[in-house]
Amino acid sequence: MGSSMTFREVTLYGKKIFITESSAEDDEFGSITDALILNGGLHSRKVKQEPTHVQVGDVRIGKGRLVIAAGPCAVESEDQLMEIGENVKKLGADMLRGGAFKPRTTPYTFQGLGKEGVRIMKKVGEATGLPTVSEIMDISDYIHFDGSIDMLQVGSRNSQNFSLLKFLGQREVPVLLKNGMGNTISEWLNSAEYILSGGNGNVVMCYRGVRGFEDGTRFTMDSGAIPVLMERSHLPICVDPSHPAGNREYVESLAMAAVAAGADMLEIEVHNNPDKALSDAKQQLDFERFSRLIKNVKKLREIMS
Amino acid sequence: MGSSMTFREVTLYGKKIFITESSAEDDEFGSITDALILNGGLHSRKVKQEPTHVQVGDVRIGKGRLVIAAGPCAVESEDQLMEIGENVKKLGADMLRGGAFKPRTTPYTFQGLGKEGVRIMKKVGEATGLPTVSEIMDISDYIHFDGSIDMLQVGSRNSQNFSLLKFLGQREVPVLLKNGMGNTISEWLNSAEYILSGGNGNVVMCYRGVRGFEDGTRFTMDSGAIPVLMERSHLPICVDPSHPAGNREYVESLAMAAVAAGADMLEIEVHNNPDKALSDAKQQLDFERFSRLIKNVKKLREIMS
Amino acid sequence: MGSSMTFREVTLYGKKIFITESSAEDDEFGSITDALILNGGLHSRKVKQEPTHVQVGDVRIGKGRLVIAAGPCAVESEDQLMEIGENVKKLGADMLRGGAFKPRTTPYTFQGLGKEGVRIMKKVGEATGLPTVSEIMDISDYIHFDGSIDMLQVGSRNSQNFSLLKFLGQREVPVLLKNGMGNTISEWLNSAEYILSGGNGNVVMCYRGVRGFEDGTRFTMDSGAIPVLMERSHLPICVDPSHPAGNREYVESLAMAAVAAGADMLEIEVHNNPDKALSDAKQQLDFERFSRLIKNVKKLREIMS
Amino acid sequence: MGSSMTFREVTLYGKKIFITESSAEDDEFGSITDALILNGGLHSRKVKQEPTHVQVGDVRIGKGRLVIAAGPCAVESEDQLMEIGENVKKLGADMLRGGAFKPRTTPYTFQGLGKEGVRIMKKVGEATGLPTVSEIMDISDYIHFDGSIDMLQVGSRNSQNFSLLKFLGQREVPVLLKNGMGNTISEWLNSAEYILSGGNGNVVMCYRGVRGFEDGTRFTMDSGAIPVLMERSHLPICVDPSHPAGNREYVESLAMAAVAAGADMLEIEVHNNPDKALSDAKQQLDFERFSRLIKNVKKLREIMS
Repeated sequence: MGSSMTFREVTLYGKKIFITESSAEDDEFGSITDALILNGGLHSRKVKQEPTHVQVGDVRIGKGRLVIAAGPCAVESEDQLMEIGENVKKLGADMLRGGAFKPRTTPYTFQGLGKEGVRIMKKVGEATGLPTVSEIMDISDYIHFDGSIDMLQVGSRNSQNFSLLKFLGQREVPVLLKNGMGNTISEWLNSAEYILSGGNGNVVMCYRGVRGFEDGTRFTMDSGAIPVLMERSHLPICVDPSHPAGNREYVESLAMAAVAAGADMLEIEVHNNPDKALSDAKQQLDFERFSRLIKNVKKLREIMS
Repeated sequence: MGSSMTFREVTLYGKKIFITESSAEDDEFGSITDALILNGGLHSRKVKQEPTHVQVGDVRIGKGRLVIAAGPCAVESEDQLMEIGENVKKLGADMLRGGAFKPRTTPYTFQGLGKEGVRIMKKVGEATGLPTVSEIMDISDYIHFDGSIDMLQVGSRNSQNFSLLKFLGQREVPVLLKNGMGNTISEWLNSAEYILSGGNGNVVMCYRGVRGFEDGTRFTMDSGAIPVLMERSHLPICVDPSHPAGNREYVESLAMAAVAAGADMLEIEVHNNPDKALSDAKQQLDFERFSRLIKNVKKLREIMS
Repeated sequence: MGSSMTFREVTLYGKKIFITESSAEDDEFGSITDALILNGGLHSRKVKQEPTHVQVGDVRIGKGRLVIAAGPCAVESEDQLMEIGENVKKLGADMLRGGAFKPRTTPYTFQGLGKEGVRIMKKVGEATGLPTVSEIMDISDYIHFDGSIDMLQVGSRNSQNFSLLKFLGQREVPVLLKNGMGNTISEWLNSAEYILSGGNGNVVMCYRGVRGFEDGTRFTMDSGAIPVLMERSHLPICVDPSHPAGNREYVESLAMAAVAAGADMLEIEVHNNPDKALSDAKQQLDFERFSRLIKNVKKLREIMS
Repeated sequence: MGSSMTFREVTLYGKKIFITESSAEDDEFGSITDALILNGGLHSRKVKQEPTHVQVGDVRIGKGRLVIAAGPCAVESEDQLMEIGENVKKLGADMLRGGAFKPRTTPYTFQGLGKEGVRIMKKVGEATGLPTVSEIMDISDYIHFDGSIDMLQVGSRNSQNFSLLKFLGQREVPVLLKNGMGNTISEWLNSAEYILSGGNGNVVMCYRGVRGFEDGTRFTMDSGAIPVLMERSHLPICVDPSHPAGNREYVESLAMAAVAAGADMLEIEVHNNPDKALSDAKQQLDFERFSRLIKNVKKLREIMS
């Protein structure tokens, strides 16, 4: 098996790369070209030293200006999203986030508006001029996103859904790849490699915390993930402070920590009426809190350049 | 949203059940019927007290006789699988396991034989008379499994792939549902609920360890998961001792612990030449070790009845 | 520093050993004698292949007969302990456990009877003929234990209290060393090494679970710890199933799993009136449950020899 | 037991408080005065809303100016510490840290200079004018610290050494209390409560990361710990970024994250020749890296006030 080498050619970051899919014996890196084997994969800073920027509409994610995507956990109605979109735009957000297909822990809670949610995202994105980001849960839903949503999010629960990752590797759409809540950084970078090795280099790594034993927060936000990612990979880094916080009182602290540690982008849950939200009610910010947060993280980013 | 109640009818374990998909506000149980809301979902022992048995071919999984599924991590060739199938059958295995579509951490390692692997599984299953279990990674692969594989495994990395779970809920095929490596038991039972609430009650819970900080083993096998599952749910319990062990020297101890704690089934990686295996080389058992293990776990199960 | 080698001589398991305390640069093994450096320390099976037995009164802990220590979390009164001691003795326990100095999470809960608790332990131990085991929290309390308690327990919270471990290394008293709830097996064996390297070889390793993210149990009982310990060390292995369970309904399953995985000893919390216990009320067994447990684990141990 | 209430009087933060040590039945808060029971203990912001400041020599720790303690993991010689002390002072450090009694994972590595190390700390502290902080491992060592060291550190491994905590509660010396690597924030605050309830209110909480499954760093630095502590307690918050990093390349990112999240103080390992350090070689900063770090964290603190 795999004794005859077959090569696949992809063009990534403007270079032609030849990839061999050999049968390595272990969960270690196998052979792409010898150069890549030694250097740890296409995500590695050894393969590409200069930081990568990912363009979403007119927003450029990577070293430089801090990018902020904001919006509700779930799209609930056109009115709701329009109000949120207009407000976060006015307050300085760069992108609009919102879930249409929602991965909910139980089947008996609000599962998102689906296709209709995508339509609303597109409409509000166009009305406000904000590029949009929304989660795709399955290959079969891609048809609804294609041409409507500017950046596709792969959520924590699908971070090792390799079928979905391979599929997205064959598109050009920018991907916001969250870490699996039970995965190491090394596993997460290998998930990114599934997309990169298909020829899609438009990947932003979005850290959303991991499982830990602490019960004072919803997930454990390991700040160490940021310098480790920066050292190992050229890909831009986003942090979602809302999910690890699990409580709106903690979101600003975590957002500040993320930017101070080196994050290039933040994805933040903001709602026009958080207490009535159909999902993640406790952790969504109201406009006032979001306004304060955005001022503070921007001030912080300025002194870091 | 959700103010007018719409009901969906499913038949589960011989009873008609009406499910409402309301818009609950939180990751708590929403409303199915009032009785179910209060009782914690279709997986709950409060809803169905007597233990469930899942039939796979002529094998009956649940309280009673210990069921053992054995076979290689990955199907590598027809010769390999035939040799393994015949040997594990002779040594007392009840079912044949083998991966055709493999979720590998990196894209540069052996990804499985795919469709051809499924064909081989079917052939060896029929030749040995062993019902087969193999992992499905994506809805779009279902067409290859349908009619060929007796029980579909949902792996740890897809344990919260709700699109896949909903899809399987609409079939009758038995499902071996592994726990996500970063999920709690409660989240895992809710993943089962996605299948049950579609009307498919043929779910076996398969524990394969969780992420922990211990580095002496590959995953942390929390024995407490077994009594907690037994208390909360009527579904049969399988344990995979191979993945938490990560080392063939530890597999028998973990298998014994699982059966002693109350597991109804074991799924064990066995290879004709473990050191040459194309994946999981370190944790697959040779026939000699498997022979000793199966004798000991059967002796143990006997004294427990 | 450390450039001139000074040797210290200890006699351990009937052999003279010379230990150098050099200034190694790292948390790796430093130099004892070259032979020991290469072999991983006095706890290592490479240094001493045959399993060690630790004698406590007339009880011999190690490979062979299963040893069971039972008794209350805390000694509450002479009447209480006498009733418990007589009952567990009658039901087949080999040793009496009971806490006199209690490490409680908060300062406002029952801290144990202290010196008076030790007196009661001694009295009940003598009356029932059961050797006793009780926790020592600080060097300064040793005076109360010396000559009164047969085996000293070092609890999870003091598992890396190296001052206490060094102190116990200079005595001959048998030590039941629990793992720290946040420690790896390797760190735990190094804690044992602090005792062994002082010349006290009477150490039994007692596993009591670790911190994990699962909230269905109190601690995560990693069954993998047992085969890893057996492979690396010659020291006897005890398991405390009561603390990881945190719930009396789960204790028997965990006890069975521990023995099936290879444990030589169990330490179990048993109370005459569990619901009224001054500490750990939920996880202490009543006599009926203990009676069933002890029958089942003994039956299990028999088939394993 | 505990049916007759006995009161103990302590004076804390200038107020008289009456504490009852009753026998609560559980690891829940027992009764101090009713007011305190309801409010969660002396560490709680509900008991004392305004932030506490802890004075160490002329340094004031708490809201306001960022305090930086810097120095080697271990005191290795007078020359070494003098060189380090003079340099960190010049670069802007406020306090001198250095270990004399070292809790090392194995008994065969450098255990610290002990009493002689304390003497050197005192000398260098006086020469540079920097107040000193050094770890105490056991009550019996207190005699060496008393009058020589300005602030006593309780390390992660002794964070639930309740005998030591009670002892320190009866002194007035400022305590830098690290979190246990396997403890929750709630348990850690209860460890602080052991000191406070003795009447010593001079406690600074020092977060040093927890155990997690990530292997890219030494410990998991959960940024969420900081806002949770700020919400629950009035005590000042310090962060040690060196231990979670485990790698000097990551220390500055973690230090920045800590200050941005709200920490009042940093404790940082700095060495004159890190690669030759007798302990923690990989994570100690050289003067150049420390110089850059201190400039950046001070600039950050400024914009946060």
